[in-house]
Formats: sequence, C-alpha cells, structure tokens
Amino acid sequence: MPRFFIAGTNILGGMAYMRGRDAEHVHVLRMRPGEDMIICDGQGTDYKCRLVKADKEQVEAEVVEVVRCPAEPSVKVTILCGLPKGDKTDYIIQKCVEAGADEILFFNSARCIAKKGNEEKKLERWQRISEEAAKQSGRGIIPQVRWAGELAEAFDIAVKKDLALFMYETGEREALNAVLDENRDVSSIAIMTGPEGGFEKFEADLAKIVGMHICSMGERILRCETAPVVALTAAMYATGNLA
Amino acid sequence: MPRFFIAGTNILGGMAYMRGRDAEHVHVLRMRPGEDMIICDGQGTDYKCRLVKADKEQVEAEVVEVVRCPAEPSVKVTILCGLPKGDKTDYIIQKCVEAGADEILFFNSARCIAKKGNEEKKLERWQRISEEAAKQSGRGIIPQVRWAGELAEAFDIAVKKDLALFMYETGEREALNAVLDENRDVSSIAIMTGPEGGFEKFEADLAKIVGMHICSMGERILRCETAPVVALTAAMYATGNLA
Repeated sequence: MPRFFIAGTNILGGMAYMRGRDAEHVHVLRMRPGEDMIICDGQGTDYKCRLVKADKEQVEAEVVEVVRCPAEPSVKVTILCGLPKGDKTDYIIQKCVEAGADEILFFNSARCIAKKGNEEKKLERWQRISEEAAKQSGRGIIPQVRWAGELAEAFDIAVKKDLALFMYETGEREALNAVLDENRDVSSIAIMTGPEGGFEKFEADLAKIVGMHICSMGERILRCETAPVVALTAAMYATGNLA
Repeated sequence: MPRFFIAGTNILGGMAYMRGRDAEHVHVLRMRPGEDMIICDGQGTDYKCRLVKADKEQVEAEVVEVVRCPAEPSVKVTILCGLPKGDKTDYIIQKCVEAGADEILFFNSARCIAKKGNEEKKLERWQRISEEAAKQSGRGIIPQVRWAGELAEAFDIAVKKDLALFMYETGEREALNAVLDENRDVSSIAIMTGPEGGFEKFEADLAKIVGMHICSMGERILRCETAPVVALTAAMYATGNLA
C-alpha cells in the first residue's frame, strides 16, 4: 500500500489534504478514488486513508483508521559510523533504515579518509535517502541522519544510551552475542563502527574508559558499510524485533 | 595480512610457490622478503607463510604454520535468492560472503523480472566477486555461487538442509527469532528469499508443503537484496557465530 509521511499533509476533521511532492507522487502512481494509502505522522502513528479526490496539485483522502505503526521496533538503536568514502554513506543509511535503526550519525575519527566539508549539503541528500527507505520499508518514523562531529562527541552520544557497543576487530573484546543476550530488555542501544581502516587502538581504549562494551562480531572482517547493518540486525534479533 | 586462495599455488616440502594472478598481486602489494601472508586451501585451512622471494612471475614463501581458519562459522548456511535485476546480485554475493554464507544460489520464480540467459557468463563474474569478498573478509572457503534453476529445484536443495527457512511477507508465519532459537544446534540451514516483488502465495503454500518454515522478519519490508543478509545475520547470531 502506498505510504507517505505527513510533512506534506494537513489532517482536518477526519480528512487528509496533501499538496506538493506527495500529491504529485499520488498522481504519478495513478491512484483512483476508493484506493487505500497510509499517511504516517513520522512519530510512529499510521493514518489509514481512502482516496477521495486526486489531481496533480491536491489530494483529498478520508481517514479510515488510526493505528500504531507495526513496523517500529521496541528498541531504539542509534548507529554511529566513522565517515566512509563515496557512496558507502548512502548504502549505510538505506540498509540501516530498512533494518530498523532509530537514527544514523556519522563522525570523524583517526583513520577517516573521506574528504570532510560540505556536510550540510550532504545531510539534505542523506535525509532524503532515509525518507525513501522509510517509506519503502513501512517505517513509522523517518530516522534522522546527523553529523555527530569528532569521536569524542560520538562517545558522548553513545554513552547516554542504555547499552553502548563499540565494534572493534582485534584485542580483548566481548562477544556481541553475549553482550546482547545479557541486555535483551534495554530500550536504547548505540552501535559504533569505524571507517574503512577501522579504529586506532587508542580509540578503542578510550571507548572502554568511557564505559562502552568493546565487541567482537567473529573473525570475519566486515567492510565498514557492512558492519553497522550486521550489528544492528544482531540487536534486532536479540531484542525480539525480527519476529 | 594479505590473504590468498591456493588455486594459484603449489605447496611442496614446506614451501609455497605462487604463479599467475596471485604472484602479480604480491608484486603489486610490494611485499618484501620476511613479510607474512596467509594462503588458504579453500577448505577451511590456513597456511601462514613468510615471503622468501617475489617477482612478477613467481613467488616463493616458507610455510610457518598450518591452522584451521578461525573465520569459518560452525554452521553452513545456503542462501537461495530469487534472481533480482541488475547489480543486486553482486551486492547479495559480496555481503553474504562477508556475513558467513557457505554458498549462494539464484533461482527463477514467478515474480522474477530480471532477464534470464547468459547465466554461464554471469557465474564467472559472480564467482570472482565471491572470491574477492572471501579474501577481504578472511574466509577459509570461497563460497560457491550457483544457478539453482527453477523454484522447484531451489526447494529440492533447501529441504535437504537441517533447517529450511522461507522468508515471506504476509499471511500466517513463524517468527524467525523463534524458529532459530529452537534450532540453535543445526549444522546446515537454507534461507530462501524472493525477487523484487516477493513470492506469490502459491509459492509460499508449496514451500510449506515441502516442509519449509514460513518465516517473518517483522513488519519492516526489506528490499530483495537486504533480506538475505539480514536473515543470514540472524542465523549467525542464533548459532553463536557473531562472537
């Protein structure tokens, strides 16, 4: 069923009025009066609507039912990634939104080789990728994509969550399995992964000092764009959100 | 540490002799005598070697230690995907190899829109993507990429595994969580996912009749190239292979 976020919609007296990009989209989909669609408020609530009238400028739909969006996970997972090169950011955003992330942040760390600058402009594009993926996968929110800043700022965000996980490829680590199994009831999780070259040892040492769990995902070396999706999926599994 | 598969190598009397593409690669990496590398037999055994001599044509290395490759999961997971369009195949192969798949097969089903034909030529390219991903992630095998044929043939392959899972987006399903939790000790798993449009109902009905578990991964709709990676990661988590 076609799915829209409410930004372009007004809901008044049991009717939804849509303009702009979303109205055009309804037009392009050639939807006809009587067909159903979902308008989501972006806060986890879905308005099931039936189309009454649609042209290129304005769409009118009757609100049939208001329900909690069933696709939202019970746990809020914040993904924090060392900024990678090229379009790996796009991939991370799309897949993490599908897999149930609550928000996705990028940060700068010692081994980042991506060119910085222009983050403002990128943020707009990143947010659009998040919106598209949220629509397509039936999410009840549009996960925010943000620029966290330097590593220390990423730590600051991570340690405020119930469970803060730092993915590291070497040295003394806890098994991700075990850490998640022991923390199935948390309501927020931060997952931090490195850029292409991973993290420096001093970065992992710092993560430990600030109270993060230094975690291993097995002996397979995951690409920087694969690691967040795998860790996020593990968190979804452990908390009963792959059911 | 640089990692090679043994196809281009002869091991004789404690020495490894490498020619062709792999020898060129060592040359390109500018490795010097005394540096370490791993040559893997593709059956899960790693030969840790020390470089003795390298030119563009031939590489000689001393075998220092022979160990079981630590990256190989304890469970063999067969991924079966409805053939998707474009380069989604490449993505599925790369990510599933990283995430620990044992083999990756594509099949034809009712809603496949990808153009068939030329599978032989594609297989060669697909196998190369698998090899690259296996090297990079430190796998002990090069997962085979194969063409399974039609849906019935895919079923035939799936039901021979200890646990056969059919991912479906609607109707009566078991939670993937629950099915995996009850089957943590299996040694082989088949995971079957659909093409872009998913499966037809009759296909899911057939899957049930042949004895597969019809599974749900939650209410989020995953893209056809995301679903196998997420399901595989869940299987790795459940069997203790994300530790």
